[in-house]
Amino acid sequence: MGSKNDLPVAEKGISILKSFGIGYEIFVASAHRTPKRVEELVTKSDADVFIAIAGVSAALPGVVASLTTKPVIGVPVSGAVNLDAILSVIQMPPGIPVAAVGLDRGDNAALLAIEMMSLANADLSKKMADYRKDMEKKIIADSESLKSNV
Amino acid sequence: MGSKNDLPVAEKGISILKSFGIGYEIFVASAHRTPKRVEELVTKSDADVFIAIAGVSAALPGVVASLTTKPVIGVPVSGAVNLDAILSVIQMPPGIPVAAVGLDRGDNAALLAIEMMSLANADLSKKMADYRKDMEKKIIADSESLKSNV
Amino acid sequence: MGSKNDLPVAEKGISILKSFGIGYEIFVASAHRTPKRVEELVTKSDADVFIAIAGVSAALPGVVASLTTKPVIGVPVSGAVNLDAILSVIQMPPGIPVAAVGLDRGDNAALLAIEMMSLANADLSKKMADYRKDMEKKIIADSESLKSNV
Amino acid sequence: MGSKNDLPVAEKGISILKSFGIGYEIFVASAHRTPKRVEELVTKSDADVFIAIAGVSAALPGVVASLTTKPVIGVPVSGAVNLDAILSVIQMPPGIPVAAVGLDRGDNAALLAIEMMSLANADLSKKMADYRKDMEKKIIADSESLKSNV
Amino acid sequence: MGSKNDLPVAEKGISILKSFGIGYEIFVASAHRTPKRVEELVTKSDADVFIAIAGVSAALPGVVASLTTKPVIGVPVSGAVNLDAILSVIQMPPGIPVAAVGLDRGDNAALLAIEMMSLANADLSKKMADYRKDMEKKIIADSESLKSNV
Amino acid sequence: MGSKNDLPVAEKGISILKSFGIGYEIFVASAHRTPKRVEELVTKSDADVFIAIAGVSAALPGVVASLTTKPVIGVPVSGAVNLDAILSVIQMPPGIPVAAVGLDRGDNAALLAIEMMSLANADLSKKMADYRKDMEKKIIADSESLKSNV
Amino acid sequence: MGSKNDLPVAEKGISILKSFGIGYEIFVASAHRTPKRVEELVTKSDADVFIAIAGVSAALPGVVASLTTKPVIGVPVSGAVNLDAILSVIQMPPGIPVAAVGLDRGDNAALLAIEMMSLANADLSKKMADYRKDMEKKIIADSESLKSNV
Amino acid sequence: MGSKNDLPVAEKGISILKSFGIGYEIFVASAHRTPKRVEELVTKSDADVFIAIAGVSAALPGVVASLTTKPVIGVPVSGAVNLDAILSVIQMPPGIPVAAVGLDRGDNAALLAIEMMSLANADLSKKMADYRKDMEKKIIADSESLKSNV
Repeated sequence: MGSKNDLPVAEKGISILKSFGIGYEIFVASAHRTPKRVEELVTKSDADVFIAIAGVSAALPGVVASLTTKPVIGVPVSGAVNLDAILSVIQMPPGIPVAAVGLDRGDNAALLAIEMMSLANADLSKKMADYRKDMEKKIIADSESLKSNV
Repeated sequence: MGSKNDLPVAEKGISILKSFGIGYEIFVASAHRTPKRVEELVTKSDADVFIAIAGVSAALPGVVASLTTKPVIGVPVSGAVNLDAILSVIQMPPGIPVAAVGLDRGDNAALLAIEMMSLANADLSKKMADYRKDMEKKIIADSESLKSNV
Repeated sequence: MGSKNDLPVAEKGISILKSFGIGYEIFVASAHRTPKRVEELVTKSDADVFIAIAGVSAALPGVVASLTTKPVIGVPVSGAVNLDAILSVIQMPPGIPVAAVGLDRGDNAALLAIEMMSLANADLSKKMADYRKDMEKKIIADSESLKSNV
Repeated sequence: MGSKNDLPVAEKGISILKSFGIGYEIFVASAHRTPKRVEELVTKSDADVFIAIAGVSAALPGVVASLTTKPVIGVPVSGAVNLDAILSVIQMPPGIPVAAVGLDRGDNAALLAIEMMSLANADLSKKMADYRKDMEKKIIADSESLKSNV
Repeated sequence: MGSKNDLPVAEKGISILKSFGIGYEIFVASAHRTPKRVEELVTKSDADVFIAIAGVSAALPGVVASLTTKPVIGVPVSGAVNLDAILSVIQMPPGIPVAAVGLDRGDNAALLAIEMMSLANADLSKKMADYRKDMEKKIIADSESLKSNV
Repeated sequence: MGSKNDLPVAEKGISILKSFGIGYEIFVASAHRTPKRVEELVTKSDADVFIAIAGVSAALPGVVASLTTKPVIGVPVSGAVNLDAILSVIQMPPGIPVAAVGLDRGDNAALLAIEMMSLANADLSKKMADYRKDMEKKIIADSESLKSNV
Repeated sequence: MGSKNDLPVAEKGISILKSFGIGYEIFVASAHRTPKRVEELVTKSDADVFIAIAGVSAALPGVVASLTTKPVIGVPVSGAVNLDAILSVIQMPPGIPVAAVGLDRGDNAALLAIEMMSLANADLSKKMADYRKDMEKKIIADSESLKSNV
Repeated sequence: MGSKNDLPVAEKGISILKSFGIGYEIFVASAHRTPKRVEELVTKSDADVFIAIAGVSAALPGVVASLTTKPVIGVPVSGAVNLDAILSVIQMPPGIPVAAVGLDRGDNAALLAIEMMSLANADLSKKMADYRKDMEKKIIADSESLKSNV
């Protein structure tokens, strides 16, 4: 995260990682305020996937991506403008991709990371299929509950 | 691709996939005009990663993501508005992530797919590191050529 | 609706449908989270008109439209960005139209559906004319109440 | 059309109406420059569906809708800003719906009108189903042609 | 005003008109919901200047302008999108001008109307000069109050 | 005009002023590059109405308005962003109104100025009514020419 | 500041200036409502750097820049639209630069002013380096506190 | 510059630096593609002011600012979206300011840098005043040339 204020967005992802049994480490490190620290954390990390969460001119995902060839997922954080963070994360130049997810979508960042790791892990892949089925059931239950009420 | 017109964006990615020796298949299939075909292509495919390229209200990446738990990379294609395709691709609801890359960035979609596949393929990982070094050299050469001219 | 959270927007339409004596069914079904369910609901339905309500990258209206040749009305739902839902609903590719109404305008979606059904139902057409007259009276009453107060 | 300049957008719709054998009349009439004429044309018309095509602060669709309870389809026309026409057409107040289609999508306006008329015309409904099948075949052909070339 | 909800914006203008001793009449009349009424009110009015206040696809100012050659001032009203009302009011086609003022600026609409009427009224012109001097004094007082506190 | 480049926008207005027999003077004077000159030109001018034409962060209309209590019409000029000029011209603070017209609408600025001057000039008022009738005739002729061709 | 309401943004900068021991003066003076006052304050000032804080069509930074060749830092202030103030401040024409900082970033305006003054003041330069180190420590502390809690 | 393609924007600044007799060095170095190189160039440089020119998600200005306490001027470069580069450059988080200038305004970046250096260099300050006078003369000449032609 680029700032401690981004924690609510991160927590959406953490709860998903926990439910899938995926290990993770969490850091506050700003592309602009602690560039050396970002460099050290990224280059010394043995993570398979990085999730970078940041707002306004959200440079963190791109800077992390510049320091590793592991997949980097970028999460723009909402604020007064929103288009600033969304466009800063998604509009990367050719050569250094960031996998951008939606505004404040820490949950989707975690799910995308798990999908990537599932490529070499059939067990995870099965859990993800179950996750989707649960989601589907919840929506059908939502739908049923409406029928009796509306 | 949602339309044959998206081919120039796809070709940026194809040339990268070829240079990394990655196999691929390419289809035109529209989320809106051929939904059954999209469903069949996705559910019968044994691809590790999907890249969905589409413009305007670019539903294709999200629809592909709804049909698989493999990672799906979405590429918005430029047009008269641009924010339509960018926001349609990135602003996915919770539960079904799309890895959005920048406008017309078929190249970054391919590189991101390769980074994902590198998680279980040390050889690819090494090639990706080489790719970055070549990119760096090119930029330094660009810089040097300026010095003598500007 | 793409999510149970869209209910307040749907209810604006339901109260209008009820006042015109139009039958309706309401479902939660997400283009991204329950694609099969959307397909089943749409292809098995004998509805004359579909109203699809969704937010963020609001793919539901377009996906419903891809599954039927009945008219589909799309209602973008407000959120942090708003342009995402508006542009996702309106900017459909050639061949598969969605009749987009304004942000959160579940009421206008219902009125538009009734206008369509009125093409073959003179009774409905008369009710719609009455509805407009009542609306006009209400505005004149609003205007008169101001004159005495401002 | 609000202006003769909107003709290329109208022609996309005319060619579709012709191919479905639907009668039509075409007028230039501006909500701002010829309001009386718009009123006369709309109130004296026996059209089942109106298609209003206009750019910049595209008031024409809304003004037509204010004069009839027949369905009105609005087509925003592209220009220097684009969001002006899109938002003017779609963001109608409660009570007077416009069925907004995408920027310059005269074709989708015609198709949407035909879908509405199909509600009481099984023949048209069948033609529309054929139209979609042709569209699907064209996309599959596009896809096949790529396979041999890319 | 297009709706009774626009009253707070109108009241900013009314208080200015009162303080300048300018007569006014206030009506609720919607371009979309009561087009006949708008036409009657405008064509029968002997007002020197019209102020039209409206939100979302704010057609009212343009419709009023289409019915008179008196100056028409348009005030966009804030809502969920804001760019919709701003662009609908300002982006008029050639031939029918609207004098657009800022979002919710009922006060500036009144001041602009007074400036127009001052062209043939030296007394009003003097009052306007006094108004500006008072405004200047207030700002200097604001500034002085800060110096002692910050 | 803020720059000589704005001449094509000014010329649209000049040809209208000429056809109405209105006297005018034209200057290039930039709010940012020649502030003293703007101040001198405005404060020494005996013009009834000012038209200020400017692009990007179009401060000229507001600065002119700050120097006079005569009506000031602001014309945003198109460029790479467009929203910059539109919003800079229309979003004036309370107290100092600018009458904003649409992007590049030098013609509407002239017409609006004439409408203001018509308040005390019945002759001008009649010419404006004729102008509108000619506009209406032209649109009807446009419409007729289409009927025989489309 | 263009208005007393901008004080919270100014205070972020004042507290930084105080902590660096930099003298400052603060005024309310509007480019639109008190142009003479702005001119006097700027031309008579012996400040090294100007910070201009304003919202909506934020002309103040540009107007200050037009009156001095000292560096001018512009701070857009948030409101209903935000893009209005941001674009008004940053999109200056060639010849008269404004150093634009982010929305409501009075703190960054102060830091940028200090960086400019540090060019000729080694002491300030050292303080700025210390400021950055403190910022870095705070972020590391934030990060550590998370580790034990999340 | 983040890319060799940004050269036309840089050249606008170079010609100004040359005319003021200011020494400069020019490099291509991408925040995303050559992060190490950016770090080296910035930390080893003895420049007084940095000008960083970049497009799309323009991270370069912010990354340079994170590596130095010298003033950093950021120039967004135009492309398909424009708001991406503008917002990425201006919307910096608290603590690390970037002095953002307008889209493609390499000239204003140079002038702003010279204004900063003028704080400790009376000679430069005089040249800048002359530059402004020349600019003023040119505008007056532009204005005069119009008078005889329009």
